[in-house]
Amino acid sequence: MMNIQKLAATAREASIALAAAGHDVKNGALAAVAEALEQRADEIFAANQEDLQLAAQEGLAEPLLKRLGFDRHKLNDVISGIRSLMALPDPVGRQLDHTELDTGLDLYRVTCPIGVIGVIFESRPDALVQISSLCLKSGNAVLLKGGREALRTNRVLADIIQKATVATCPAGWLALLETREDVNEMLKLDQWIDLIIPRGSNAFVKYIMEHSRIPVMGHADGICHVFVDKAADLDMAVAVCCDSKCQYVSVCNAMETLLIHEAVAAPFLQKVVPALRERKVRLLGCEATRRIIPDMEAATEADWDTEYLDRILSIRIVPSLDAAIDHINCHGSGHTDAIVTADEARAERFMNRVDSGDVFWNCSTRFADGFRFGLGAEVGISTNKLHARGPVGLEGLTIYKWKLKGHGQIVADYAEGRKHFTHRKL
Amino acid sequence: MMNIQKLAATAREASIALAAAGHDVKNGALAAVAEALEQRADEIFAANQEDLQLAAQEGLAEPLLKRLGFDRHKLNDVISGIRSLMALPDPVGRQLDHTELDTGLDLYRVTCPIGVIGVIFESRPDALVQISSLCLKSGNAVLLKGGREALRTNRVLADIIQKATVATCPAGWLALLETREDVNEMLKLDQWIDLIIPRGSNAFVKYIMEHSRIPVMGHADGICHVFVDKAADLDMAVAVCCDSKCQYVSVCNAMETLLIHEAVAAPFLQKVVPALRERKVRLLGCEATRRIIPDMEAATEADWDTEYLDRILSIRIVPSLDAAIDHINCHGSGHTDAIVTADEARAERFMNRVDSGDVFWNCSTRFADGFRFGLGAEVGISTNKLHARGPVGLEGLTIYKWKLKGHGQIVADYAEGRKHFTHRKL
Repeated sequence: MMNIQKLAATAREASIALAAAGHDVKNGALAAVAEALEQRADEIFAANQEDLQLAAQEGLAEPLLKRLGFDRHKLNDVISGIRSLMALPDPVGRQLDHTELDTGLDLYRVTCPIGVIGVIFESRPDALVQISSLCLKSGNAVLLKGGREALRTNRVLADIIQKATVATCPAGWLALLETREDVNEMLKLDQWIDLIIPRGSNAFVKYIMEHSRIPVMGHADGICHVFVDKAADLDMAVAVCCDSKCQYVSVCNAMETLLIHEAVAAPFLQKVVPALRERKVRLLGCEATRRIIPDMEAATEADWDTEYLDRILSIRIVPSLDAAIDHINCHGSGHTDAIVTADEARAERFMNRVDSGDVFWNCSTRFADGFRFGLGAEVGISTNKLHARGPVGLEGLTIYKWKLKGHGQIVADYAEGRKHFTHRKL
Repeated sequence: MMNIQKLAATAREASIALAAAGHDVKNGALAAVAEALEQRADEIFAANQEDLQLAAQEGLAEPLLKRLGFDRHKLNDVISGIRSLMALPDPVGRQLDHTELDTGLDLYRVTCPIGVIGVIFESRPDALVQISSLCLKSGNAVLLKGGREALRTNRVLADIIQKATVATCPAGWLALLETREDVNEMLKLDQWIDLIIPRGSNAFVKYIMEHSRIPVMGHADGICHVFVDKAADLDMAVAVCCDSKCQYVSVCNAMETLLIHEAVAAPFLQKVVPALRERKVRLLGCEATRRIIPDMEAATEADWDTEYLDRILSIRIVPSLDAAIDHINCHGSGHTDAIVTADEARAERFMNRVDSGDVFWNCSTRFADGFRFGLGAEVGISTNKLHARGPVGLEGLTIYKWKLKGHGQIVADYAEGRKHFTHRKL
């Protein structure tokens, strides 16, 4: 059995050296990883075939098998992902502020890595490469735990990354955990681990959040809303709603509840209900909705707090913009919420008062994604209110430190009035 | 008894409206607070006299009585603090990024308040005004719990702030808690409260960190180090050490352990030991230190992990710069650590590898403070590795949201290749 404490302690040591690694070193290591992945492609595909066969024998569902697969196409994707990452500027060592406190006493706020990050991710083995590359570029050591069904593929991928970086990066900067027990062990190691990023099902993420003393970044629920305002272009609203609900139903940024301003409820429902039913969406309406569309099933109170991740949608008619905002702040999960309206003032009010990481105007909730946002890649989506919110890329894996450079200055001189601060922003 | 749940739920509602309040509204409210404090000064002083008399009867120590006092001098200080805060730019609504995802599809990252903040602070009543002003300027609702011995003063101050802002700010944006039970109740309300900032003793802050499911920002230990390098100007090092240790011994940014490079240990100890003993500092040395200064008491392993907050200092001789860095990363608390050296490369290595919020070169650890850093004011000092590190001012009380503004764009068009992202940084 692996000694997780030892892995974590080693990762912590490695993180100190990796934090000080220059951009060239990190990009060189990334280039070596990309090359090694190409060279050992057959080994990856063979291990993945084993994983796929075992998973098929165990009766894994088709969509999950698809996510588990790692073929030439996915390999090309992760390699081109690494190359895009290399092209991005170094997120570490960026000077955020410079203040002269006094002549010869200069304060700098400079970005640095967080330290050691534990990431628990789902069955996609390509996620292992993406997360490791993001951590390397941001100077963080990483402990990785992937899906059980991808174990053989993950072992080969982790081995490739470790060997490709062994010459340039501190030993132990990346380690692979293999069991649930390893994860439970890891959650206790707040002495060495600075951040846990769990990805996966709602129940799983909640479990991690409740069982860790280490800060956790991520999201459990994704209860996203589209509000169709009285000033909406109704055809645009139909398109946005169909995309938000149906473009990919099982993901966190899909719409789960549709809110409609009462002034346009009847004409809009006449348009959107056939469109959604044509896409095989089961509709659950509030009382007012069912007065307009009598053959719709009734939504219960619990529906407003439910993430279906399926072809199901709850619909509620609200009397005003503020009622929509209140509904979202009360029942939403702070993930992504959209308004469709032609009225800019109403859109601004919505975006300023809906307390979610992503607030959208006249576009689909499905745009909430690190790649679509142009972040290059994402380690996850955060509904936290601290540090990083929404899709989290390189920047969310960094923090800052204050560097104060002096010439022997002491506080007594300032406290006793012999010297005075200038506090000049530079 | 107060209903804390109700206060928190009301604060949450207020926070939504306060988040959308403009700079003029917030500055107007701050001006009204400053004016009301002046108008009701006698009432404050009278309440404070009651607090002071009761505290004296209960035998509160002299330094604590001094902190509890709120006189004309402190009133002037808090009022001028409010005026400085008014002069700072609005931390909310600041655009951090703008990316064109496609023509007519614009992504903005914009600062916003965190929401509802619970602050538990020590006996200084002036802290109530400072914290409230910072929260108001940053658009956050706040639940405050001050020291028991300042209750009467705090009640008057909270009443003044509430009444002065009632016309312009949402009701319930500020509430005063009065008992320990109120605090315990508050720690459970993660549904409404976004952040807890505890200030006070190490044991108290640890208690809060262990008993809250709400994120906690602050510091428990402040085990700060000064490392006197072999390339140090020894006279400068003596001055920095005496200031770091003695300028104010009972605070978190005072030096608790002195590390000395072995190459300069003998000459430096000959200089620094008399200087510290003259300032009545009790010295505890490692074995190597005691070989040079035989009449020094011995330090034990436990001393390297001890925050004395007193005129006591542990001293250790280390064989190298990296040994000093390792000692600090192992025994430090991530607060503030300084190196004294004339060698810039060695200073950079220290500052890049010591994993603390504040890393100083050739100056006293006592500079670690929001006012000295020019932040205007601070709500506390954070040793967290996420969100905000070191002294936390207005910026640490904000986060951001992503605003995406479109014209009906849907993801299907991009996923199916009919449209392409431009991802143009603007």
